[in-house]
Amino acid sequence: MQNFVYYAPTKVVFGRDAEKKTGALIREQGCKKAMVVYGGGSVKRSGLLDRVLASLDESGVSHIELGGVVPNPRLSKVREGIGLVRREKADFLLSVGGGSVIDTAKAIGYGVPYEGDVWDFYTGKATAQASLPMGCVLTIAAAGSEMSNSSVITNEDGGLKRGCKNDLSRQRFAVLNPELTYSLPPYQTANGAVDIMMHTMERYFTTEKDLLLTDALAEGLMRTVMECAHTLRGDPENYAARANMMWASSLSHNGLMGCGTVEDWASHQIEHELSGMFDCSHGAGLAAIWASWARYVMDADCARFARFAVNVMGVPRGADDRATAERGIAAAEDFYRSIEMPTNIRELGYELSGEQINELAEKCTYYGTRTIGSFKKLGREDIVKIYEMARG
Amino acid sequence: MQNFVYYAPTKVVFGRDAEKKTGALIREQGCKKAMVVYGGGSVKRSGLLDRVLASLDESGVSHIELGGVVPNPRLSKVREGIGLVRREKADFLLSVGGGSVIDTAKAIGYGVPYEGDVWDFYTGKATAQASLPMGCVLTIAAAGSEMSNSSVITNEDGGLKRGCKNDLSRQRFAVLNPELTYSLPPYQTANGAVDIMMHTMERYFTTEKDLLLTDALAEGLMRTVMECAHTLRGDPENYAARANMMWASSLSHNGLMGCGTVEDWASHQIEHELSGMFDCSHGAGLAAIWASWARYVMDADCARFARFAVNVMGVPRGADDRATAERGIAAAEDFYRSIEMPTNIRELGYELSGEQINELAEKCTYYGTRTIGSFKKLGREDIVKIYEMARG
Repeated sequence: MQNFVYYAPTKVVFGRDAEKKTGALIREQGCKKAMVVYGGGSVKRSGLLDRVLASLDESGVSHIELGGVVPNPRLSKVREGIGLVRREKADFLLSVGGGSVIDTAKAIGYGVPYEGDVWDFYTGKATAQASLPMGCVLTIAAAGSEMSNSSVITNEDGGLKRGCKNDLSRQRFAVLNPELTYSLPPYQTANGAVDIMMHTMERYFTTEKDLLLTDALAEGLMRTVMECAHTLRGDPENYAARANMMWASSLSHNGLMGCGTVEDWASHQIEHELSGMFDCSHGAGLAAIWASWARYVMDADCARFARFAVNVMGVPRGADDRATAERGIAAAEDFYRSIEMPTNIRELGYELSGEQINELAEKCTYYGTRTIGSFKKLGREDIVKIYEMARG
Repeated sequence: MQNFVYYAPTKVVFGRDAEKKTGALIREQGCKKAMVVYGGGSVKRSGLLDRVLASLDESGVSHIELGGVVPNPRLSKVREGIGLVRREKADFLLSVGGGSVIDTAKAIGYGVPYEGDVWDFYTGKATAQASLPMGCVLTIAAAGSEMSNSSVITNEDGGLKRGCKNDLSRQRFAVLNPELTYSLPPYQTANGAVDIMMHTMERYFTTEKDLLLTDALAEGLMRTVMECAHTLRGDPENYAARANMMWASSLSHNGLMGCGTVEDWASHQIEHELSGMFDCSHGAGLAAIWASWARYVMDADCARFARFAVNVMGVPRGADDRATAERGIAAAEDFYRSIEMPTNIRELGYELSGEQINELAEKCTYYGTRTIGSFKKLGREDIVKIYEMARG
């Protein structure tokens, strides 16, 4: 069990009608002019944006808007937002949307007080020292960005998708109303479930020992997500399932599931290159590569995968850890199939050429300058093999 | 599932040697002069206080001291501390100890900027509007005060023990080094285990439905605490068990285990009167009354107690919820016995007279002005019956 720091200061306001409190929550932060960041038109069509803006008006918070954030959010939109905040002198960033919207706001938050190029924080060239305060009204249970300290931005110039972690980007508040996710189509709901599972698995698959409490919490969270994902297939307006999925999204990525572990994140890094190249959905991309990653690395600690099989996937423990582990990975694939998620890249919709695999692996190792993962450290050749296994 | 607010901003710095960071953590808060609050001589004898003060010196944080806090901490000590902070113009409160020490600091924190009597906050006469910032170095895994918003103080004038909840009392940081708990005697370790279990059970026993995630987390936490308590009986310097117990103490009482529930707290209130009268250990007092409370209220929702029996106590599910529930309560008593905790008030060391029971019940209902509990609302007559059942 590693030493750790756990810091998740976001005030979560959870439940029906929670968005009506948004204006008051901004005032609690001492702020008076918000830039409201959102994606496509759905928050307008649903009436949510109007309700949120009404709440700001009631609390005397003035507002400007930045719409048009897209999935796998773009650096150009971040730059547009930085310019707008500076011109309009907004003092708060309010995201209304999912992970892409919140991640865009996080990058804008870093960029506003910084004299250099905000992309510096995503290449590791600089570390943000300040940020505009921010909060969010969440509309998708998936990315966990509402409580996390991380954000991922894609630079259209080269299709590079890069992340940045910094506690300055923790939301001051997160408004979580499960009813706002009722209208998500099954594909997006399933994508979210995979993302939540994977935020937990990236922390759970560790060679660290003695993580009794963190393991118990993670296993409970993953079982809950699978149960809710199944319920929502047939009953998308089931409040309990939407609510538990939403809360799981936040807890999967606020740090709690990583307390004492050495986190892995190889699957995410392998997937980031895929969605950088193809602009595929993050959750589906993760589902498409996870089992290949798992089979490639499992021998580093079969007992860990066997534990996952028994405690999460409900597989009976066999005499042999390796066989139990194998059945656990297959059961996870079955779960992904049951919610119509792909289990390889062909099912994801892409036929990878050998050349493309080489390009993905090159980018994933930052052109040979890094390894990824910790459960098993992976270099360029390992990553090529995993893409080949995941090709389908 | 109820709407909820979750807010646990405390920065947890967890692991070996964590106390060496104390000075830097105070400086992060912009503070320069700490009043260090502690209990008896054990933090001096062990050398911990010296290590902490050295860390403050290294960071340029000056310090004064307030020692002598006792279990079931006293209002007189709080008043002494308020006077000392005002005279010495300290700008930070650092607790080095367990729940009693932290609770004393919380009360001092409210009292310093308040012109009236600090006891007002504990009688409900006033709500604190400001507090001195504070942090702690924890030496006992039990009370959870290191992340909670609550504190309990005993007014020697009348033996009244009263609590106060306010987010202003959330610690800015909590230094959690499990090795600092190695020297706790078995009795105190067991007391802590009961307290952690009970902080979870007070939230877990609710008639609310659909708490999939909160239930899974609570059940995992309770199983972990029981496992660690057993390990520590034979191996008090087992790092993994001390560490998981310590982290469980924080998570049991920072709000996470209550997300979506209606909390109960009747057992705590029944116990508070016992320790107000007899100055007994809080954990042992809880163990002595819990099963009687449970048997008295179980019919309000037998299925809930049956779930506890199966998922926490590992009892096989019977055909009948009530019988399963009964076996779960008996299994919890067996657990308490296995760590040498009492299961009734006689085993706790006291022979209650009928007159004393009446006095306890009167005080517990604030002389007939309130009911307690929510799983089943309890009035004076109910409380008398529970004390009689728990008499032993």
